[in-house]
Amino acid sequence: MYLTQGLHRAVQQTPDLPATIFGEQVRSWAECADRVSRFAHALQALGVGTGDRVGILALNSDDYHEILLAVPWADAVFTPVNTRWSAAEIAYSLVDSGTEVLLVDDAFASMVDDLRQRCDVLQTVIHCGGGAVPAGALSYERLIADHEPVADAYRGGDALAGIYYTGGTTGSPKGVMLSHANLMTSALGTAATGAFMVPGGRLLHAAPMFHLADGAAWVARNALGGTHVIVPGFTPGGVAEAIAAHEVTDALLVPTMIQLLVDSPDAAEADLSSLQHLIYGASPISEAVLERAAKLLPSARFLQLYGMTELSPTTTALTPDDHADPELRRSAGRAVPHAEVRIVDDEDDEVARGTVGEVAARGGHVMLGYWNKPAETAHALRGGWMHTGDGGYMDERGYVYIVDRIKDMIVSGGENVYSAEVENALAKHPSVAACAVIGVPDPDWGERVHAVVVLVDAQQATVEELREHCKQHIAGYKSPRSAEFVEALPMSGAGKILKRELRARHWPAGDRSVS
Amino acid sequence: MYLTQGLHRAVQQTPDLPATIFGEQVRSWAECADRVSRFAHALQALGVGTGDRVGILALNSDDYHEILLAVPWADAVFTPVNTRWSAAEIAYSLVDSGTEVLLVDDAFASMVDDLRQRCDVLQTVIHCGGGAVPAGALSYERLIADHEPVADAYRGGDALAGIYYTGGTTGSPKGVMLSHANLMTSALGTAATGAFMVPGGRLLHAAPMFHLADGAAWVARNALGGTHVIVPGFTPGGVAEAIAAHEVTDALLVPTMIQLLVDSPDAAEADLSSLQHLIYGASPISEAVLERAAKLLPSARFLQLYGMTELSPTTTALTPDDHADPELRRSAGRAVPHAEVRIVDDEDDEVARGTVGEVAARGGHVMLGYWNKPAETAHALRGGWMHTGDGGYMDERGYVYIVDRIKDMIVSGGENVYSAEVENALAKHPSVAACAVIGVPDPDWGERVHAVVVLVDAQQATVEELREHCKQHIAGYKSPRSAEFVEALPMSGAGKILKRELRARHWPAGDRSVS
Repeated sequence: MYLTQGLHRAVQQTPDLPATIFGEQVRSWAECADRVSRFAHALQALGVGTGDRVGILALNSDDYHEILLAVPWADAVFTPVNTRWSAAEIAYSLVDSGTEVLLVDDAFASMVDDLRQRCDVLQTVIHCGGGAVPAGALSYERLIADHEPVADAYRGGDALAGIYYTGGTTGSPKGVMLSHANLMTSALGTAATGAFMVPGGRLLHAAPMFHLADGAAWVARNALGGTHVIVPGFTPGGVAEAIAAHEVTDALLVPTMIQLLVDSPDAAEADLSSLQHLIYGASPISEAVLERAAKLLPSARFLQLYGMTELSPTTTALTPDDHADPELRRSAGRAVPHAEVRIVDDEDDEVARGTVGEVAARGGHVMLGYWNKPAETAHALRGGWMHTGDGGYMDERGYVYIVDRIKDMIVSGGENVYSAEVENALAKHPSVAACAVIGVPDPDWGERVHAVVVLVDAQQATVEELREHCKQHIAGYKSPRSAEFVEALPMSGAGKILKRELRARHWPAGDRSVS
Repeated sequence: MYLTQGLHRAVQQTPDLPATIFGEQVRSWAECADRVSRFAHALQALGVGTGDRVGILALNSDDYHEILLAVPWADAVFTPVNTRWSAAEIAYSLVDSGTEVLLVDDAFASMVDDLRQRCDVLQTVIHCGGGAVPAGALSYERLIADHEPVADAYRGGDALAGIYYTGGTTGSPKGVMLSHANLMTSALGTAATGAFMVPGGRLLHAAPMFHLADGAAWVARNALGGTHVIVPGFTPGGVAEAIAAHEVTDALLVPTMIQLLVDSPDAAEADLSSLQHLIYGASPISEAVLERAAKLLPSARFLQLYGMTELSPTTTALTPDDHADPELRRSAGRAVPHAEVRIVDDEDDEVARGTVGEVAARGGHVMLGYWNKPAETAHALRGGWMHTGDGGYMDERGYVYIVDRIKDMIVSGGENVYSAEVENALAKHPSVAACAVIGVPDPDWGERVHAVVVLVDAQQATVEELREHCKQHIAGYKSPRSAEFVEALPMSGAGKILKRELRARHWPAGDRSVS
């Protein structure tokens, strides 16, 4: 199994089909293969050898798609860089992985000097995009034009395909090493559920391509054939326009993106009837958002995928059929065909159904390990299972419920209040575009239910009004007693709301352990 | 990736669902896991160690399913034995693979003494089935009852899963070594086409379980969850009854089985409306049989898979949608998501589209090699590609046409006559149950179109009558000038008609090279 497999198949079966649609720019699979094989040649001419790392620091683009194929074609390893990280964090990942060649696009060209200063290891910078080539950098298009096609190195199987740095939690970032077989297993196994993507269809890339949620969808789209429709980044209007203009059949979005989409006037006016699969991950979707999304996208079936980078990344799926059951919609689904999942205690013994423990997974999708971190690797993979660090329980039918989400709970006046329930109620208010509900210290209640709200453009709302609205749906003690209105919610690279950051403004450091 | 993965998932998600339905005998997944883990323990207690080979010589049964799981659970390797082989051929495969433990069922109990004499290596015989246990053999049920469950050895990845002996062609049989990853890759990749099987559905095993055509469907059914409906072997009545009685959703049959099914009065009377996927392989299906099958099975979609044991076995698929195009129905389909396929010349260079060459394939489904045959392995896998030995060409859209079938051609009076076309016409005659058309030597015509015909029970027909019938559909020079009526057509283990044998009766040895 090798990541370039789908490229070979596409050239053979559908050479004239668009491989990528990026704004006005359409490139066929034949053109894509030509550019990929030329750029791979250029990398080799620049001294990139077997297993060498090539970094990519860029917004989504058709070039990004080509680079992800050209690197293994040249027998090298890609390191997609988190575009939301600071220069210091990015430099850490480049130095740690020994990345000597880095691609940057227009959006990140201005960081090149800073990164060069921070990274002794960095030898070659290649610029892609329509803007000016930074001083000392090479031009991606020039390299393609100047090199003849080279034969595929057929890097594959258990060979390292990419290093993905995981951050957002405490400690220094770890480089997750994924093999070609890891990534292909996850893609084929998820597709084997029959609910992943339309064969030969069109996949929208609006989530960041550096993140493996989108990356895994990219692997699957290549394996199944079809077309990548790419926007530089997520905006509700951009997504609606791309779906309508290019008859997108499959899209991967995180729930917060879906919420922004269903609130968008652009989406309401666009013809989104081509969309057949809406894949989401990172967190369950609220009832209110799901209802509105189902109305906005009547032809779409919903698929929730749960996993982590270390699992390439999919390990459970909540299928479209599962979504019919409101109870199941709180769960992360069941083990996919390529995975085995269980809930274990501190001794690594499986716990009884319904008992909370750590989610562990096994299968061909489990990472090779953490780059240069044998102790952390051995610990994470002890006993042959990947230990996710996520708390969860399993029901009698094998459905997994992630408790770190469910435990996102406020104890107010001795009553348990689940944030998700309050967020569901709040989201039904017409002025609320996005929201997060947290517990904050309160002299009377211990914790007080507090809402952080993003309002729909030009709309107004008061705490009292939101509270009264919520009380129509949920008990008074669950309804927010205070609120703050913000421009945007803090998000992780995966598009998950960082409640930790929201809480930090209200709680003294170390006073609350739930992340 | 490991073959016991699906068993673990099924126990977790659907413990009470039937794993196997075999006649009146229904065993749940929980019961299956219990029996598998006990029998694995018994194997270990009998001295079966890591990588040791365990043979199975049996008709299809629920025990067969369990044994295929128990062997890897015990960290061992299965060698399913071709039940159609002679004692000498079976002995060759057991000795060659060093199989010390052999399971036999009632149908093959009488061969035990003979095999013991021929195989010094054979130390332990275990008998399964309801009949008497042969002298010196152990009882499968007794071993299960006498042993406690043992933990899964989690044999998987690139470790050897099974050795499948391929025969039917010239030379001594070769043991094809397939890993867990090989078999799982083929199963997940084929399922990723979205047209393989109903998730959680019921698969009929009527083709022999020792052959990898059925074996691959077995792997996929385990991976996707669901139930195995098993009949000891193919009979039209038995298949019709099993589909109707157990609401079978998916079935794998070879075209000759499909032909016998559509001719069967039992099938015509049975309710076969549950069948959603009819998977066939080994050879393309004739137009006439396809038409009749579509009438008999109105809910079924047709999927043709092409490959070979060395490819675990699937490498191209002709999808249900492809079947709508009569031209494409002559092809073997296109590369599946887990495979790359190309047509090469004697120098291993890819030939132009439409040019005949050798079909070669690459991917995670390519065998580890031939058991104890490094030279043959290196030759078959030269340049990283599995060389199938099949002649074929590829069209502009990547569809593969196998020429050794198309070249199944008769040159009569200077005119080319394609056997398939004549067989199509013949099959439309109400008295014809099955047929094969070959060229035989003729002083006037060079080759004469000759039909070998199996008649429907109690029906009569003459050569003249069949010839007149054919002339209503095809040209006179294509219509058979001679015929013989036989009880059954000679078949390979894969259910392919052995035209070689039919021709051998008419041609001097070595006079004709097409196999």
